[in-house]
Amino acid sequence: MPIVALLTDYGAVDSYVSEVKAVILRYRRDVQLVDISHEVGRYNVLEAAFVLRCASKTFPEDTVFLCVVDPGVGSHRKGLVINTSSGKRFVGPDNGLMYPAAEEEGVEEVCSIDVGRLNVEISQTFHGRDVFAHVVGMMISGKSLGDVLQPFSEYVRLELPRPDIGAGRVTCQILHVDRFGNSITNLHQSQIPANLGFFDVHLKGRNIGRIPLAHYYSAVNPGEPLFLVGGTGYLELAVNGGSAADRFRIKAGDRLILTYQGLPPSL
Amino acid sequence: MPIVALLTDYGAVDSYVSEVKAVILRYRRDVQLVDISHEVGRYNVLEAAFVLRCASKTFPEDTVFLCVVDPGVGSHRKGLVINTSSGKRFVGPDNGLMYPAAEEEGVEEVCSIDVGRLNVEISQTFHGRDVFAHVVGMMISGKSLGDVLQPFSEYVRLELPRPDIGAGRVTCQILHVDRFGNSITNLHQSQIPANLGFFDVHLKGRNIGRIPLAHYYSAVNPGEPLFLVGGTGYLELAVNGGSAADRFRIKAGDRLILTYQGLPPSL
Amino acid sequence: MPIVALLTDYGAVDSYVSEVKAVILRYRRDVQLVDISHEVGRYNVLEAAFVLRCASKTFPEDTVFLCVVDPGVGSHRKGLVINTSSGKRFVGPDNGLMYPAAEEEGVEEVCSIDVGRLNVEISQTFHGRDVFAHVVGMMISGKSLGDVLQPFSEYVRLELPRPDIGAGRVTCQILHVDRFGNSITNLHQSQIPANLGFFDVHLKGRNIGRIPLAHYYSAVNPGEPLFLVGGTGYLELAVNGGSAADRFRIKAGDRLILTYQGLPPSL
Repeated sequence: MPIVALLTDYGAVDSYVSEVKAVILRYRRDVQLVDISHEVGRYNVLEAAFVLRCASKTFPEDTVFLCVVDPGVGSHRKGLVINTSSGKRFVGPDNGLMYPAAEEEGVEEVCSIDVGRLNVEISQTFHGRDVFAHVVGMMISGKSLGDVLQPFSEYVRLELPRPDIGAGRVTCQILHVDRFGNSITNLHQSQIPANLGFFDVHLKGRNIGRIPLAHYYSAVNPGEPLFLVGGTGYLELAVNGGSAADRFRIKAGDRLILTYQGLPPSL
Repeated sequence: MPIVALLTDYGAVDSYVSEVKAVILRYRRDVQLVDISHEVGRYNVLEAAFVLRCASKTFPEDTVFLCVVDPGVGSHRKGLVINTSSGKRFVGPDNGLMYPAAEEEGVEEVCSIDVGRLNVEISQTFHGRDVFAHVVGMMISGKSLGDVLQPFSEYVRLELPRPDIGAGRVTCQILHVDRFGNSITNLHQSQIPANLGFFDVHLKGRNIGRIPLAHYYSAVNPGEPLFLVGGTGYLELAVNGGSAADRFRIKAGDRLILTYQGLPPSL
Repeated sequence: MPIVALLTDYGAVDSYVSEVKAVILRYRRDVQLVDISHEVGRYNVLEAAFVLRCASKTFPEDTVFLCVVDPGVGSHRKGLVINTSSGKRFVGPDNGLMYPAAEEEGVEEVCSIDVGRLNVEISQTFHGRDVFAHVVGMMISGKSLGDVLQPFSEYVRLELPRPDIGAGRVTCQILHVDRFGNSITNLHQSQIPANLGFFDVHLKGRNIGRIPLAHYYSAVNPGEPLFLVGGTGYLELAVNGGSAADRFRIKAGDRLILTYQGLPPSL
């Protein structure tokens, strides 16, 4: 049974996601349709790219990812199918959304979608349903995509911002604030100095003090802030039983400067 | 594998939707359960009817739709099964919710549900689980509904409001505001004059100016309003990268007067 | 086809739920994954325990429930598998969350999970994915859990608060406020005096007046409050077409004193 995982900014209020699924089911019914999220920040390609890269790692290797955060829908941006060496495949718009996840799996072949050859009616604003769902349906039902797909090399290579790591000082960025207000940075656990007890933290010019680095939320008292490595594998700023985003007024995109005693692991 | 599509106003916070699914799964397990939406406006039968009509078109023809927006639950309103000529079937309360969608598919036979013959315990407030899910379960598992269903002709025929189309002037109504703030009217694309570049727009007595008619969101500058035909096939008022509903303080039910140079397609 | 029902406080914005499902699908693909709710109050074990107990009753008897509301994740709290006499099984943290539901089904055997024997990489903060999903995957795919599970008797026995029932007076508690603002108490329908027409109600020291006990919402005029037994089987305070929670400023945990003429059913 094939697995199709969906990531969009379509939201849960509307019927858009169900229409995407309805098209896929017209090609094949015994399929596991898994929602990654449909509530990523509207049109926020960077945040969605981060969420996709984190989530896609956990899926089985033959999963097809249908991804739509698509501010340019209807314009000349192309649609893509990306095959990776792990076997995972990504279908969605060419705006960088899928690139960080695909790169992690090893980009093997990128094709653009020739919508004219799909032989379906295509609206100007809903390519998730009218283009990408058809391509996914054909892929999982063994239908030949024939000349719908054309090798393509000029695709958008979106790089997630990297932390700036120096001796005693890291500048990192909040890439995602989760439902709990946990503020997830772009500093991977492999980039955190060993045996560190705390960071001194500056956020947007404010010194917000010394915050311990712990292993789990309840390692500090309720209401106290902490750093820890979350399920994503990245450093996050949290508050035990509370919201770091509310407490420190953090939103995705904000920069943190962390200073500490010692050397970074990469030096 | 049968497909059951669900539309309710039960929301995602509570467990109600899962209980509806649990009952269906007691009849048959290999079924695709697809959520259309559970976040339509509470008790808003008109909005839900519009969302259902738009979404149901995309589904395969043997889909069973279980629909519950049901302010009259527990009162004397009946439950219905509507069979259509396309093959799609609709199960839910007799309050008009399913009528516009069923009419689009061609109403073939309407039956009322005799809850007394279902032989299940029925709460006064949760017919989605206690009545409609059982009926759907029996339908998809090939169980005879026997005399549970009775032909019925006095069902509610809800008509979605139609636009008033005159020479140079259309009065239409916002039927749904989506997650993006796109404000979807009841003016179908077939009713839009050809070769039109813009509309002059009055909203609730205010002149909100001249707004271009475009093919996709990014055809105008970020932050600029536009009209376009969305994935629903209806004219919508949008703001590129923003929210038309916020910008113009629009909500479902609001009326728009559009004036333009030329003749409507129907004259 | 096995059924796995999921209840968490992970929310719909993030990809956490999808990662839990992705792990389960690595063990077995033909499985019905049903979301009970992922929006219960953050870290609110009591509310989640109530929602779980209400919802789990409706599911088929071989359902496996994966439950995560887990403020103590990463600390020394154990993970549990609870087998019940009905056949339903519960997998999640040992904080009482699953106890009221399991007790209702008849607790048969409780085991703790020895995470060291799972042979998987385990984060400190995401046991839903790294521990419980693996255990569920092994259970539904027939893999032996061998010595991963150890009989355990010192588990947390969370009791949902019980109403205090006296002659002419009941003190009860709001356990859950649903999407509609219906405020669900812990007074079961079997504990409501027969033939009662109304309650006189005190809420947090305020007398909020005499409120009728009805059978369905539209039994009172729109905007009027009422008591009724909802789909959960418990007494709830509602407003026809409105929100009792907004009207009376109620939240989960609030206490209601109901006085009436007559004797309670238990005396």
